[in-house]
Amino acid sequence: MRVGVYQFSPEHLLVETNLARIFHRLSRIKADLIVLPELCLTGYLFSSREQLARFAEPVPNGPSCNKIINFCLQHSINIVLGIAEAAGSKIYNSALLVTESGNVHIYRKVHLFADEKDLFDPGDLPFPVFNLGSVRIGMLVCFDYFFPESARTLALRGAQIVCHPANLILNYAQTMTVTRAQENRMFWLLANRIGVEQLGAKKMQFTGQSQIVAPDGTLLYRASADKEALKIVEINPGQALNKNVTARNDIILDRRPEMYL
Amino acid sequence: MRVGVYQFSPEHLLVETNLARIFHRLSRIKADLIVLPELCLTGYLFSSREQLARFAEPVPNGPSCNKIINFCLQHSINIVLGIAEAAGSKIYNSALLVTESGNVHIYRKVHLFADEKDLFDPGDLPFPVFNLGSVRIGMLVCFDYFFPESARTLALRGAQIVCHPANLILNYAQTMTVTRAQENRMFWLLANRIGVEQLGAKKMQFTGQSQIVAPDGTLLYRASADKEALKIVEINPGQALNKNVTARNDIILDRRPEMYL
Repeated sequence: MRVGVYQFSPEHLLVETNLARIFHRLSRIKADLIVLPELCLTGYLFSSREQLARFAEPVPNGPSCNKIINFCLQHSINIVLGIAEAAGSKIYNSALLVTESGNVHIYRKVHLFADEKDLFDPGDLPFPVFNLGSVRIGMLVCFDYFFPESARTLALRGAQIVCHPANLILNYAQTMTVTRAQENRMFWLLANRIGVEQLGAKKMQFTGQSQIVAPDGTLLYRASADKEALKIVEINPGQALNKNVTARNDIILDRRPEMYL
Repeated sequence: MRVGVYQFSPEHLLVETNLARIFHRLSRIKADLIVLPELCLTGYLFSSREQLARFAEPVPNGPSCNKIINFCLQHSINIVLGIAEAAGSKIYNSALLVTESGNVHIYRKVHLFADEKDLFDPGDLPFPVFNLGSVRIGMLVCFDYFFPESARTLALRGAQIVCHPANLILNYAQTMTVTRAQENRMFWLLANRIGVEQLGAKKMQFTGQSQIVAPDGTLLYRASADKEALKIVEINPGQALNKNVTARNDIILDRRPEMYL
């Protein structure tokens, strides 16, 4: 299975420009699954919930979502991306898995970071896992990685590959997601953005270093901190079905939930 | 608070020799809390449960335990060490916190590693936390670190310092315990052993690199992979009461247990 991450700097609030860039780059590659950053169509900063509401769109019937569905159908590719999702009066910081068959699966960021608490509603979907053919796919959005329960829940639901759109500004994730991959024996596709975004006094420097990690923690790829990068690697998702860290230690079967708070 | 780790190579099955070495080294330092490796009085390998039973001792009334209690009383020091504990017909791979007041607190390894499953009973104490003055202390033994639920349970019980006796042979723990410290905002004292132990065809090379980690993941100390080392650092355990990774993200309050499996 050819899986990859596309790290770039979205143009702030220029949805059409960002869509065009994504389609331009992804139309020139051959891959089964590509992960894009969090909020990659709009950028990260919004001045108010009202402004965010003008950019959030319903899924799967919103205009960007429709274009992505068509792209996936035409190019036989599966894409995970971060998007502002409007759902009735709610707005979620969501990740979508848009499949080559035109299906759209939704995950809504459960753990909101910092001032996102003023903008978004907390996710209400308890870490669903979706089939891509016979491969089980889970999604997290950015800060979710910090809570081991997020990835663990995906693992217990059978996820073999975690797709992780992010807009990281701290320096924890690149190490911590290696631990997440190891402790759950899953593949991990972290797609972080690069660049700087400013809104009034608020200035954010995103840290790049998107990475692809194997279930044993091997770093199959890590991008630079500041350059656009599109990388695809060939993996065998079946490796993530083997939970043995030693011949006698299956790290899922060895859990003792009766001992945990 | 002066806390430390003592990394050495126990002499296999020579309990008196190991006790003498420990007392010799610890009588020459000034510290509040020192962590020693897993099974540091006996070494790691046993040919059978019957052999192990001859070396396991009741707590707190066993001969080694009594000597350690006396040492702690005389030197006003708190020691965490790994020991084979006999309890009725059970044998546990335990960690003891022996206090300067002569109290003994027990934790029994919950997640047994590899062939330990033939020798020890799985721990039956769900990650208790103990007070050392006003400071809350948790213990894990070696492979427990691999399961995020272990450290998380200690954190939810208020542990500020995790004492982690180990006999590590894989290369995961030094990175993973940094993640554990960060995701729970706790201090972490990993005391690993060094050296090689052989029993018949079984040969184990232990990996050293004992380390002391701050709640933000800062590595306050890391020992070499193959040299004896006794290191003490001054810490403020109160730092572990601050769970804010950002001004608006308390990583305990931000948890959403209703979403976790």
